[in-house]
Amino acid sequence: MTTTVTTVLNDPRFKAAEAALQQGYTRFVDELITLTEIPAPPFKEQRRAAAYLKMMIDAGLDDAFIDDIGNVCGVLRGGHNAGHVAVAAHLDTVFPEGTDVTVRREGTRLFAPGVGDDTRGLATNLNMIRALIAAGIRPARSILFVGDVGEEGKGDLRGIRHLFEQGPFKGQIEAFVGVDGDQTARIVNQAVGSLRYRVTFRGPGGHSFGAFGVVNPAYAMAAVLTGLSQLHLPTEPKTTATPSVFGGGTSVNATPEAVWFELDLRSVSATELTRIDRAFRALLDQAVAAENARGQTHAGVISVELQNIGNRPAGLCDPASDIVAASLEAARAYGFDAELRASSTDANIPISLGVPAVCMGHGADDNTRAHSLEENIDVAEDKVMRSQSAILATILAVAGIAE
Amino acid sequence: MTTTVTTVLNDPRFKAAEAALQQGYTRFVDELITLTEIPAPPFKEQRRAAAYLKMMIDAGLDDAFIDDIGNVCGVLRGGHNAGHVAVAAHLDTVFPEGTDVTVRREGTRLFAPGVGDDTRGLATNLNMIRALIAAGIRPARSILFVGDVGEEGKGDLRGIRHLFEQGPFKGQIEAFVGVDGDQTARIVNQAVGSLRYRVTFRGPGGHSFGAFGVVNPAYAMAAVLTGLSQLHLPTEPKTTATPSVFGGGTSVNATPEAVWFELDLRSVSATELTRIDRAFRALLDQAVAAENARGQTHAGVISVELQNIGNRPAGLCDPASDIVAASLEAARAYGFDAELRASSTDANIPISLGVPAVCMGHGADDNTRAHSLEENIDVAEDKVMRSQSAILATILAVAGIAE
Repeated sequence: MTTTVTTVLNDPRFKAAEAALQQGYTRFVDELITLTEIPAPPFKEQRRAAAYLKMMIDAGLDDAFIDDIGNVCGVLRGGHNAGHVAVAAHLDTVFPEGTDVTVRREGTRLFAPGVGDDTRGLATNLNMIRALIAAGIRPARSILFVGDVGEEGKGDLRGIRHLFEQGPFKGQIEAFVGVDGDQTARIVNQAVGSLRYRVTFRGPGGHSFGAFGVVNPAYAMAAVLTGLSQLHLPTEPKTTATPSVFGGGTSVNATPEAVWFELDLRSVSATELTRIDRAFRALLDQAVAAENARGQTHAGVISVELQNIGNRPAGLCDPASDIVAASLEAARAYGFDAELRASSTDANIPISLGVPAVCMGHGADDNTRAHSLEENIDVAEDKVMRSQSAILATILAVAGIAE
Repeated sequence: MTTTVTTVLNDPRFKAAEAALQQGYTRFVDELITLTEIPAPPFKEQRRAAAYLKMMIDAGLDDAFIDDIGNVCGVLRGGHNAGHVAVAAHLDTVFPEGTDVTVRREGTRLFAPGVGDDTRGLATNLNMIRALIAAGIRPARSILFVGDVGEEGKGDLRGIRHLFEQGPFKGQIEAFVGVDGDQTARIVNQAVGSLRYRVTFRGPGGHSFGAFGVVNPAYAMAAVLTGLSQLHLPTEPKTTATPSVFGGGTSVNATPEAVWFELDLRSVSATELTRIDRAFRALLDQAVAAENARGQTHAGVISVELQNIGNRPAGLCDPASDIVAASLEAARAYGFDAELRASSTDANIPISLGVPAVCMGHGADDNTRAHSLEENIDVAEDKVMRSQSAILATILAVAGIAE
């Protein structure tokens, strides 16, 4: 089904679509600002989803709707009954409720939390929808445009997971292009998998002096941490283990009844991720046993509770696959020094399922300070056009153009 | 200067004082309830102090005043110019602002946060002041009655510390009787010393995957915890080390920039307390060096900050000293199965300074649930009278009765 990027670039209908992208530039910037200023904290994407649905319908996808988990979905029908190519940007930002999301403009730069990650992706897709319709392009395979929920942090890719596993498009998506990231030059074909846990150690607690000698859950935690620091973690395939957030205890003069930490395990290899997960679980058992052997247990023993707070599958989309080749060729055609990258994105889900997938950035920015309050992007028209043309060419090469 | 308990008990003026204690019983209970219902959270004892000052003046100590740190002080002048015997109860409770301190009465039991610890001590001292004055007793040494601030938790004994180190009575207090605790049978002559710290480890932080490999402050913390778990802590003299409260980190997908824990070190031996404090500090240096050797430091190194959040001196008042002998004899004379105990009380300060000191409980209660919202005491008249008589006899044996 896939056609070549060269064929797409030489097609007069694509030239018409490029002209339409350019005509839509001002509206693209306006929509980007409007969407950025609608807060979309984790698990609270509803207001932005409602606005995005309206924009998607206005752009020409009359049947657009919001699915059961909150994803905004709209289909540009293809000429063949041959499944869908999904094109997705995520609705959610990392910023909590109450964050000031007013956009500040300095020349061609826009400053606001979330303006780049991934609100520009949302606005990019709207401009591409309008351009395809204006140019009268009918793709060979239907293109499913998605504004998805839950890409960031504890959202744990729940939007795209739902799309592939439970929604009305389950089993119908044959290729996936994520539109996310600062730089079109960086094409993600390798999914960094992650397992995230909250690990809670419990014990009897008690007065620090009067009841001293009892087992202390902090000592079991310390043994696990030390074990993690000594794990063999390969640099190739890159594999990491990071204890990150800590808490527990009630008073300086009491042995804690509970202490906890959060752990982030990642690998670009599913095999390595499984290996370090097993090694980590073995450390838990050893540490609990050791502390119960060291301290007094008449008032109670140490136990550990493992709560999974994140699970993103690892995987690789073959660098020699059509979709990767198309994205590299399209990006290079527009002057980007394109290269392949590993990252954790919405593309993790299709990649882990064996569905051809990449994630492409929608800009040409360095140092956007994404995830910080100083997040900013450059929306200079020439840069925007190069990125949007490269992404649109990739999508059409993957979906094909119906004759 | 000290006289014997037997002499005191046989003195007709003491018999008159005992009768006056009994006459004051109803007023004692009323004042106890009134004081309990005036909140006195840590560092917020002012309202209760103002009320207690008025009560102390009403009881007959016309010159009572509030010192620079907030202690209520009133002197019953002695017959000799030979220094003071301080008799102290603490104004503060452990309960935060907003705690419901309404007293509920069930038979002879009073229920309310702080009713026993140490509000009954405050009311006991008022009843003793009135009894001494009513009986026309002039002590040999002046008796300084004190309602002191900051006995609990992070108050860190600041009231009594001020009294001995900076206030107008500095250098004049020759003996100390703390009136605190549930049971007159338990006489504290051994001061449990404590050193409390908040220990904060800092590092460069960064993305858990993108910037993986940098030093992690949690690993330095873990090494210190493991070192603490392996310290030799003697059971005699009892010495303890308890890591208690934990925090730090910002996000599951970031190496923490800072993690911290609170540590409670205690001993009944000042020497042992110093020894484990030194051992702990050595662990800090080792752990920081080890983590800086293990991880990457191009973005920054691990450092540690030690904040002292508590310092209570240890010490022992000789069991053979006059004051300990008098308190044991007086308690036994009123039917208490008296024994010596180690605890952390206002008496820590005089004991550490070599000033003879004990702390005596003001009741005959089991399971008062002190420091809990269910705190309760029994104020049955016979029990109250036995405790107050024993304490008053001790005070007069220590201060002497002027001829």
